[in-house]
Amino acid sequence: MSDTRTVRLILAGYGTVGRALHDILRADGDAIAARHGVRFEVAAIARSQGAWVAKEGEVLDALPVSDRKDLTVSDLIDQVEADVLVELTPTDLDTAEPSMGHMRAAFEKGLHVVTANKGPVVVDYPGLMDAAASAGRAVRFEATAGAAIPLMSLADFCIQGNPVTRIEGILNGTSNYILTRMGEEGLAFDQALYEAQAMGYAEADPTADVGGHDAAAKVVILANHVLGRPLTLDEVKVTGIGDITGEAVQLALKQGYVLRLVATVGLEGTATVAPRLVPEASPLNVPGTLNVVRMHTAHAGPIVVTGHGAGGEETASAVLADLLALPA
Amino acid sequence: MSDTRTVRLILAGYGTVGRALHDILRADGDAIAARHGVRFEVAAIARSQGAWVAKEGEVLDALPVSDRKDLTVSDLIDQVEADVLVELTPTDLDTAEPSMGHMRAAFEKGLHVVTANKGPVVVDYPGLMDAAASAGRAVRFEATAGAAIPLMSLADFCIQGNPVTRIEGILNGTSNYILTRMGEEGLAFDQALYEAQAMGYAEADPTADVGGHDAAAKVVILANHVLGRPLTLDEVKVTGIGDITGEAVQLALKQGYVLRLVATVGLEGTATVAPRLVPEASPLNVPGTLNVVRMHTAHAGPIVVTGHGAGGEETASAVLADLLALPA
Repeated sequence: MSDTRTVRLILAGYGTVGRALHDILRADGDAIAARHGVRFEVAAIARSQGAWVAKEGEVLDALPVSDRKDLTVSDLIDQVEADVLVELTPTDLDTAEPSMGHMRAAFEKGLHVVTANKGPVVVDYPGLMDAAASAGRAVRFEATAGAAIPLMSLADFCIQGNPVTRIEGILNGTSNYILTRMGEEGLAFDQALYEAQAMGYAEADPTADVGGHDAAAKVVILANHVLGRPLTLDEVKVTGIGDITGEAVQLALKQGYVLRLVATVGLEGTATVAPRLVPEASPLNVPGTLNVVRMHTAHAGPIVVTGHGAGGEETASAVLADLLALPA
Repeated sequence: MSDTRTVRLILAGYGTVGRALHDILRADGDAIAARHGVRFEVAAIARSQGAWVAKEGEVLDALPVSDRKDLTVSDLIDQVEADVLVELTPTDLDTAEPSMGHMRAAFEKGLHVVTANKGPVVVDYPGLMDAAASAGRAVRFEATAGAAIPLMSLADFCIQGNPVTRIEGILNGTSNYILTRMGEEGLAFDQALYEAQAMGYAEADPTADVGGHDAAAKVVILANHVLGRPLTLDEVKVTGIGDITGEAVQLALKQGYVLRLVATVGLEGTATVAPRLVPEASPLNVPGTLNVVRMHTAHAGPIVVTGHGAGGEETASAVLADLLALPA
């Protein structure tokens, strides 16, 4: 395409997702330009070790040498000419900082924001939307729930006009992996958790995953964006899977059910994350680390979407979709 | 929203889908205007009994009195001031007419086209795209495959940048209903077909559904639009379900499989529609009239979407989504 636009990115955070995004942009850059008329250039990267800033016309083909220890994310937003802040710093579900500050600064500088960071979306969805709208900029956050599974963009661009009235889903792959393994292999919770940690699916501190708080944060995001319901995190009733015994899982299986950590939210009533008996034949019975979301719609019954809810490349693919969905 | 645009529609065809769309627009018109800033007005309707044309400022609140037997669809396109042709006439998979003619005339008059009619998309996808592009108009056809399930829009707006490399799916609800009932109730094919006809799921002439040709047409649409592969209908290898015995279905079940009419197409190789053994736990094992599509993606593994693949209101919801996705 002859009229390829260049879109310059500031990457705040360069962990698994940031590196995977950078890898995709390097590998697929020409194909993306040909197909979508956009070429994404990394203008600057901020990571804990320091920052990297592109010199005039420089294209980053390898890992960045982060030698600018003097530059913060805010400095980059202030000083680097760019179009989009890609906010991939660690999530803080209490304060949403420093991510929210980065995003507000970005809007004020005229940048769009794409993020995989749940913090600002969960802690202050209306504030985030207002900040973007006031600046006339876009904020997109497909990667914050379900990673590669289209949820926000599905509601925005695919089933608009067909309102979603209720959402049920498996929104945490770690707990689903543990429950799957308890069912398949008759493992106790502690054994399955240990295995999940050994496989790299669970953090050293697995509280957010097995306690249901990670899924609850995603419920808040889906409620606000897909249902248009101003739900807050403290309104979600959360029960984790830590007390589930191997016997309970096996007993359920004998009756034709699996135990799953199911998130549920409607237009009103209590939003919950809790272990539920799910019929084996239910579309909500997904194995391993998969995520699944069932959206009940006003005009077409349930629409169910299943896929990988975690992983660097999977999450980066959602960030890229958001980048491509930004207004020109 | 103060700056609500009015978008005027010509409905060509006013069967189940057309009436359902009209019902949704009447019931949800204010909500759509508030949320999307667009008000859709029916400017004219063409049906077999005759045409209806809105008088100056007239809003159609009831079933149209189709008293203009002198006006054809082409006349309406030529004479009525409108923005979009909603093409819902019956599908012809041999000639694509009269639908293709309507669409070309609409583009030439500066109208966008939204359709649930597979004909033009299957018979001449490149010609249809070229005609739209030459006129600088959009053509959208989400409803032509999977009805309410987002497939084309999902590829266009949700997972752009994450190329789909292979598609498998259950794309015909009638045959899936028959196979489901043969499994659940041990019915013979003829009994299950009779039941499907009695329930209104199967046509009096079920050839296209049980013969696999309806699914094959949808494979052609998905191949062309989602995979970017210029596949034609005669290239799809099609085997129907008419020869499947109740014994075969029961034998499969004993081994942990269900028989399903599975459509498969990749970037190269043979595209097929054929009965396949599907593991009971597979996401492709959907019951009854449901449809399911598994898209294998370059960066995020499989993404599976399930929902109602037929029905007037369900199909109309996809037409409405397409209308909302049109450029302003």
